Amino acid sequence: MRLNAVVAGVGMTPFGKHLETGLKALGAEAVKAALADAGIEQGQLEAAWVGNAAAGLVTGQESIRGQVILRSMGLGKLPVVNVENACASASTALNQAAAMVSAGLYDIVLALGVEKLYHADKKKSFAAFSGAVDVEAMASIIAGLKQSAKSGGAKSAASGAGEKRSMFMDIYAAMARGHMQRYGTTAEQFAMVSAKNSYHGSMNPRAQFREAMTVEEVLAAPMIAEPLTRPMCSPIGDGSAAVVLVSESKARELGIQKPIKVVSSVLRSGWDHDLEESGTVELCSSTAYEEAGVGPQDLDVVECHDASAPAEISAYESLGLCAKGEGGKLVQEGATRLGGRIPVNTSGGLLRKGHPVGATGIAQIVELTEQLQGRSGDRQVEGARVALAHNGGGNIGTDAAAMCVTILRAD
Amino acid sequence: MRLNAVVAGVGMTPFGKHLETGLKALGAEAVKAALADAGIEQGQLEAAWVGNAAAGLVTGQESIRGQVILRSMGLGKLPVVNVENACASASTALNQAAAMVSAGLYDIVLALGVEKLYHADKKKSFAAFSGAVDVEAMASIIAGLKQSAKSGGAKSAASGAGEKRSMFMDIYAAMARGHMQRYGTTAEQFAMVSAKNSYHGSMNPRAQFREAMTVEEVLAAPMIAEPLTRPMCSPIGDGSAAVVLVSESKARELGIQKPIKVVSSVLRSGWDHDLEESGTVELCSSTAYEEAGVGPQDLDVVECHDASAPAEISAYESLGLCAKGEGGKLVQEGATRLGGRIPVNTSGGLLRKGHPVGATGIAQIVELTEQLQGRSGDRQVEGARVALAHNGGGNIGTDAAAMCVTILRAD
Repeated sequence: MRLNAVVAGVGMTPFGKHLETGLKALGAEAVKAALADAGIEQGQLEAAWVGNAAAGLVTGQESIRGQVILRSMGLGKLPVVNVENACASASTALNQAAAMVSAGLYDIVLALGVEKLYHADKKKSFAAFSGAVDVEAMASIIAGLKQSAKSGGAKSAASGAGEKRSMFMDIYAAMARGHMQRYGTTAEQFAMVSAKNSYHGSMNPRAQFREAMTVEEVLAAPMIAEPLTRPMCSPIGDGSAAVVLVSESKARELGIQKPIKVVSSVLRSGWDHDLEESGTVELCSSTAYEEAGVGPQDLDVVECHDASAPAEISAYESLGLCAKGEGGKLVQEGATRLGGRIPVNTSGGLLRKGHPVGATGIAQIVELTEQLQGRSGDRQVEGARVALAHNGGGNIGTDAAAMCVTILRAD
Repeated sequence: MRLNAVVAGVGMTPFGKHLETGLKALGAEAVKAALADAGIEQGQLEAAWVGNAAAGLVTGQESIRGQVILRSMGLGKLPVVNVENACASASTALNQAAAMVSAGLYDIVLALGVEKLYHADKKKSFAAFSGAVDVEAMASIIAGLKQSAKSGGAKSAASGAGEKRSMFMDIYAAMARGHMQRYGTTAEQFAMVSAKNSYHGSMNPRAQFREAMTVEEVLAAPMIAEPLTRPMCSPIGDGSAAVVLVSESKARELGIQKPIKVVSSVLRSGWDHDLEESGTVELCSSTAYEEAGVGPQDLDVVECHDASAPAEISAYESLGLCAKGEGGKLVQEGATRLGGRIPVNTSGGLLRKGHPVGATGIAQIVELTEQLQGRSGDRQVEGARVALAHNGGGNIGTDAAAMCVTILRAD
């Protein structure tokens, strides 16, 4: 839908391992930061959408996650909608909040994403991902992936999905092998994504990993699921990110400097289609481009869902940053590196900034808003005016279960 | 918010124990029934909001519950927002769907509530409720309730909350004892609620319990948490309920007979307040009455959240059906029985129709829509034109965490 919600303020916690910090404290920290950035009192919030995926499994906090966080700040009464779409939970919260404000139903709203994945018992952390597929069909999916890895001669370091790591890395590894076979993409090119994002992340004080890695170091790291080495896989992490959105009229009233607008946010679900057929990313991005009146050539900066390095290469192609099959070349020629034609994941991306799943989609909006406002410090993309966020969640059939593409524009 | 969404069709499964039926089959059955009732093809749906509270805990299906259900029907691509607000999950889904349609963002949408609580391992079923409070604060809440029961000399049959039954029955029992002390309400009056709802439920082919009970039988049943006997507590159950909502213009285009409109749906969160201060129900209902341009005296039929018998008596008062403290008298004089001044829970309510938590809020809308369309058979309220649904979820401080009041009107 065509939107005109204005970002009044953004805030987030550092992403990382916060074993001693609870869900409430993490969430409240991001909300307070976004309110302070907006110059808005918490009592002015009229409604809140709260994205979270795994608190039920990891912390035992089910159902009323948003209310519990907001109450810890002394904030009640307002409507709170807890939304969930796996790794796309936060962009779903933003999508709903932006639609409501654009439609004139509210003037000042909150979109919050929050996640705690680290747990003393690591099995709990990884279990968080095993419910983000069709669980009734999951057994056969896993069997198929194992067969594919076996017949391709690929090695997998995990003894079982959902135990030592997320089963999603098996899905991504199968995707990576398919891309290599069809288009001649190389493991080096996947490693270039991780190296680039580590360079970006080294300049982001909120990133989970600050170490810049070379392509050689990425390739030499422990193998998780061939061809994915550890730095090609996003880590688990804790964190929270928040956005305060206001209507156009409220933005004028508040006298917001450098207003950034959410001009399109397209949420779609996966369906069963051929691997060759266009999927959710193409469906979302083509609609978003049309609604925003821009094309991929107009983008200045992109945050994409690099849950694995090959996922970023695939996103280049699906978002139209390059032709099908040329994603490997795009990273190799440096186009998506800071200073290149279209910098991608200047935050460090999921790979390096971290991936507290229910917070990720809004953390992307935090990064892009700051880029469009010219306050990204060393990793600033000069003169950025149009930005795109790509955030997917879960798996269904041959595609993401939920996909959300958001376009922001500096007015 | 003032709304004008039109109910095009409703559908639900029977509520009860469906151990052999999965979440997907339950959800799809309700969706198909609602589509058939609306005379709308599934491909015409433009978006879906899906309420569920406990599938993650009970079935392992997390995150993308709506997509998994809709895909099982061959339905993909559309935006799916999974929402959660404990026992108010379904009314939250309806609230969002109705707002979006009223704001002109969509023309044909689905609101679905679905739940599977029965599990071969009963601990899993009851664990479903233990996360619907502030879990970081839960330990002290439980300790306080036990102390209150002890000092009041009350007996509790459970060895521990969250094990043999939901801890919410401890909360309701404490509430009931408070009502008895303050207003002289009697256990007989609580039993009258259960007897009345069992009479209503005996005429509802979709009710989990069809047996009509006398007040004496209710009082003689096993004690769960004093003064609540088993028929004063809603059972666990499986089931699903769906509504297809359309815009006013689409309703005209489709030539919908007997259009029922969602004229107000007010969702609010709990906050910490004195027990004497008005809470979420008063906040929601006063706003809903104002938006709908009606008062409690204009209501013809009500479905309220009788998770326990005293909760129905408390709802009478908070919704303004009678003065504070007079809820016991209201049921005793027969006002809320079919044929009375304002029939409440003609479906049998949560107590007898059943309470698959994430489905309950929309099942209320199914009942009320059929009442307003004059197709409720033996339990028809003659000439009903204005209806109210009251659905609460979770617990926070001294109140429900999420509360939703919806007003429907026959045009």
